[in-house]
Amino acid sequence: MIRVLIWNEFWHERSEEHIKKIYPDGIHKVIADFLGKDEELNVRTATLEDDHCGITPEILAQTDVLIWWGHCRHDYVPDDVAMAVRNAVLGGMGFIGLHSAHFSKPFRLLMGTACTLSWRLSHDSELIWVVEPTHPIAAGIDRYIALPEEETYGEPFRIPTPDKLIFLSSFSGGEVFRSGCLYERGAGKIFYFQPGHESNPTYYNEQIQRVIRNAVHFVAPQQRVSIGGVHVRKVTDPEPYVIE
Amino acid sequence: MIRVLIWNEFWHERSEEHIKKIYPDGIHKVIADFLGKDEELNVRTATLEDDHCGITPEILAQTDVLIWWGHCRHDYVPDDVAMAVRNAVLGGMGFIGLHSAHFSKPFRLLMGTACTLSWRLSHDSELIWVVEPTHPIAAGIDRYIALPEEETYGEPFRIPTPDKLIFLSSFSGGEVFRSGCLYERGAGKIFYFQPGHESNPTYYNEQIQRVIRNAVHFVAPQQRVSIGGVHVRKVTDPEPYVIE
Amino acid sequence: MIRVLIWNEFWHERSEEHIKKIYPDGIHKVIADFLGKDEELNVRTATLEDDHCGITPEILAQTDVLIWWGHCRHDYVPDDVAMAVRNAVLGGMGFIGLHSAHFSKPFRLLMGTACTLSWRLSHDSELIWVVEPTHPIAAGIDRYIALPEEETYGEPFRIPTPDKLIFLSSFSGGEVFRSGCLYERGAGKIFYFQPGHESNPTYYNEQIQRVIRNAVHFVAPQQRVSIGGVHVRKVTDPEPYVIE
Amino acid sequence: MIRVLIWNEFWHERSEEHIKKIYPDGIHKVIADFLGKDEELNVRTATLEDDHCGITPEILAQTDVLIWWGHCRHDYVPDDVAMAVRNAVLGGMGFIGLHSAHFSKPFRLLMGTACTLSWRLSHDSELIWVVEPTHPIAAGIDRYIALPEEETYGEPFRIPTPDKLIFLSSFSGGEVFRSGCLYERGAGKIFYFQPGHESNPTYYNEQIQRVIRNAVHFVAPQQRVSIGGVHVRKVTDPEPYVIE
Repeated sequence: MIRVLIWNEFWHERSEEHIKKIYPDGIHKVIADFLGKDEELNVRTATLEDDHCGITPEILAQTDVLIWWGHCRHDYVPDDVAMAVRNAVLGGMGFIGLHSAHFSKPFRLLMGTACTLSWRLSHDSELIWVVEPTHPIAAGIDRYIALPEEETYGEPFRIPTPDKLIFLSSFSGGEVFRSGCLYERGAGKIFYFQPGHESNPTYYNEQIQRVIRNAVHFVAPQQRVSIGGVHVRKVTDPEPYVIE
Repeated sequence: MIRVLIWNEFWHERSEEHIKKIYPDGIHKVIADFLGKDEELNVRTATLEDDHCGITPEILAQTDVLIWWGHCRHDYVPDDVAMAVRNAVLGGMGFIGLHSAHFSKPFRLLMGTACTLSWRLSHDSELIWVVEPTHPIAAGIDRYIALPEEETYGEPFRIPTPDKLIFLSSFSGGEVFRSGCLYERGAGKIFYFQPGHESNPTYYNEQIQRVIRNAVHFVAPQQRVSIGGVHVRKVTDPEPYVIE
Repeated sequence: MIRVLIWNEFWHERSEEHIKKIYPDGIHKVIADFLGKDEELNVRTATLEDDHCGITPEILAQTDVLIWWGHCRHDYVPDDVAMAVRNAVLGGMGFIGLHSAHFSKPFRLLMGTACTLSWRLSHDSELIWVVEPTHPIAAGIDRYIALPEEETYGEPFRIPTPDKLIFLSSFSGGEVFRSGCLYERGAGKIFYFQPGHESNPTYYNEQIQRVIRNAVHFVAPQQRVSIGGVHVRKVTDPEPYVIE
Repeated sequence: MIRVLIWNEFWHERSEEHIKKIYPDGIHKVIADFLGKDEELNVRTATLEDDHCGITPEILAQTDVLIWWGHCRHDYVPDDVAMAVRNAVLGGMGFIGLHSAHFSKPFRLLMGTACTLSWRLSHDSELIWVVEPTHPIAAGIDRYIALPEEETYGEPFRIPTPDKLIFLSSFSGGEVFRSGCLYERGAGKIFYFQPGHESNPTYYNEQIQRVIRNAVHFVAPQQRVSIGGVHVRKVTDPEPYVIE
């Protein structure tokens, strides 16, 4: 049983009428619904409105894969929560960053780079091409996924070279973007997946759902390890031979 | 002219008599001396004792390569200084982390991982083997550098897979360590080089000096770019098409 | 002085009238012309029609960067010539594969993979986006290069993960392609650059010329080493401590 | 059920008395014995003495993981057999190269580099250190494996930068070596593991056995794909959208 926690800042869906129509109970609810059909997954959700963002060390210790959606409220996530997520990933928890989570605190802490990108509000369509057709995250996907409308993201995307590039996207306006990027950091696996702007019903697309479900299975840890002494503000000398 | 800034926490050399004998004016002074003989380099130094650690945005803007030595005072470097160094590297400044700088705030921010390692106080000797004999950083070095005594560092060293592994070390006690690791992050190049415990006269070794000088030339930027919006605590949406 | 050898199979330009109109003296001649304006380069050419394809060990020993254009005559290059090129690259010679050189024998020997891709005869336009804006190969290039017409190449491109991805392309038909890929193999640097179908005047484009010139400077070796014993058919035990 | 084929040149064990004492029925037999205890594995063996080296397209099509041991008879493996193995790996078959298989034809074809290394006949002991303690291939292994005697291999090992470095070794004579290297090429996974000189009883060591068994499970394919057109000597244009 893989324990999945879906985190959503849950702001647009409550504050903007046209978004509420698409995701009346929030993006996290739609993701929880389709993942919940997978009997190997145990799915919970949390949002920025919950106590302590719904993320405590105890909750993280019981999470195998954390899915993150955030956009305009990144700053509202406390630094210590971001650092706790980072540490959990280094200790083996899988992390899936969706769409504008490229700019979330946990993702940027894990990448070490600016994570900026080019973007353009648009009504472009998107083609998500499979670069690694035999990778488990692309299982069940044909040559590409076609989305009738998505926000345009473009290169340069300032990330470390991905360990593995799974998807590459083109937009009808001409831009290209590395839309499915896989990393290993410490004991954890990280997958960034670009589609999912709040004003488009992307997470209802069955192929997008398939990729996210594939990714949950792929980044789920085989084991977890405890890590210590990695807080940015306070470092003590490592103990001899204590691994992370 | 490459503008080099050598930063040292400068603590052991002032507080411990046996270290003071080896580096009476500080490790930074010895490094500055041998780099100063290279006419293509303009060398300055800074220490933790200087105002604002000797590191301000203005100083970083005039620095092409920052060399960092720190060990037991990492916590005394303010977070905003660490973040300013990180940002300067992402914008193109070269960074050379020496010895226990693996645990410095700037290095860990750039790596995104715990950067822990195994270690053992010892009187081991070390052999630093060349893995990439044709790489510019290894120019002038034979098959290995032999150090009669160094602190023992060992795997697992919890870093992202280096873009290029230049040196690998063995210690007489049997440990192995990835002792010369090269990364590109944003527009900047980062080189981590393990030798240089404060109680050993390692920086007087001419081959070690050669590697550091080679590395300065290699990580020096061809260009610098301005980056914005990358502070951990405050993120604003990026401007369309503004590169970092 | 960088010694550049431009190799072209020189078939389409002699056998097809509409190609001859675009490149009357061959693609190699156009490339030689624009590279010849760079005073740091010494430029020669060779074609499949020359004795021994114009490539002998003596010629390779005097070549710093080999540029390769081939399409429908890959099979006519003898295996021993392909292996000699491979060995020269491993020994430090730079290699630039243009367009359908993805399927040339030397490139495939160096990659170790099938190097297949998707393609489509088309009149698509192409946008070549810069992924690494501060990389020397992208110097002087704005956000993208626009080509009014090119042959469509698409993913999956079956190559090892590039050490560095410099350019990514989109085509007006929707395809995406990793169009600028950088590798280090042995002592040599390899750059694959996709544009340049024979029926389009791509090599007259000044931005394409700029990229190729940048690449020549970037992959030029700092040193060459001798390698031995790497022929596929005959391997003798390596001498102790003989590097390649 | 994972179908494993263990290939051995089977020369030393038949021609040298002191080797025959260690491996009377051949190295492949000892490996088959310990792998055979794993009920998820179906184990067969083949040697250079078999018809067509015991490797035909039909046999490869029924093989999930190929383990290769060769040393002084690499040249006796026909080129077309080596290329068939390469193609099977690119199509998804796992490949484990043991010890001097670094110089086997299939491994070198897949790497694209010289694969030379430094070596020294010795009675050195070896410590195989775990670099990635949470990787499945290192499961069940403590900080290191100690071998009382092994042939000394040393850097520089002329391979492409491994996708993941799992083990690093030191030898009592001081050398270091990247002794456990993981690659993905096409649809296949490749693991190179250095220990196993014929004059040492290394394959009776239970921890070495554990690593090899772990590796078999890790490199076993989730799916196989057919590839075509990748022979060095004869290339035909790829079909549109035919993947490998």
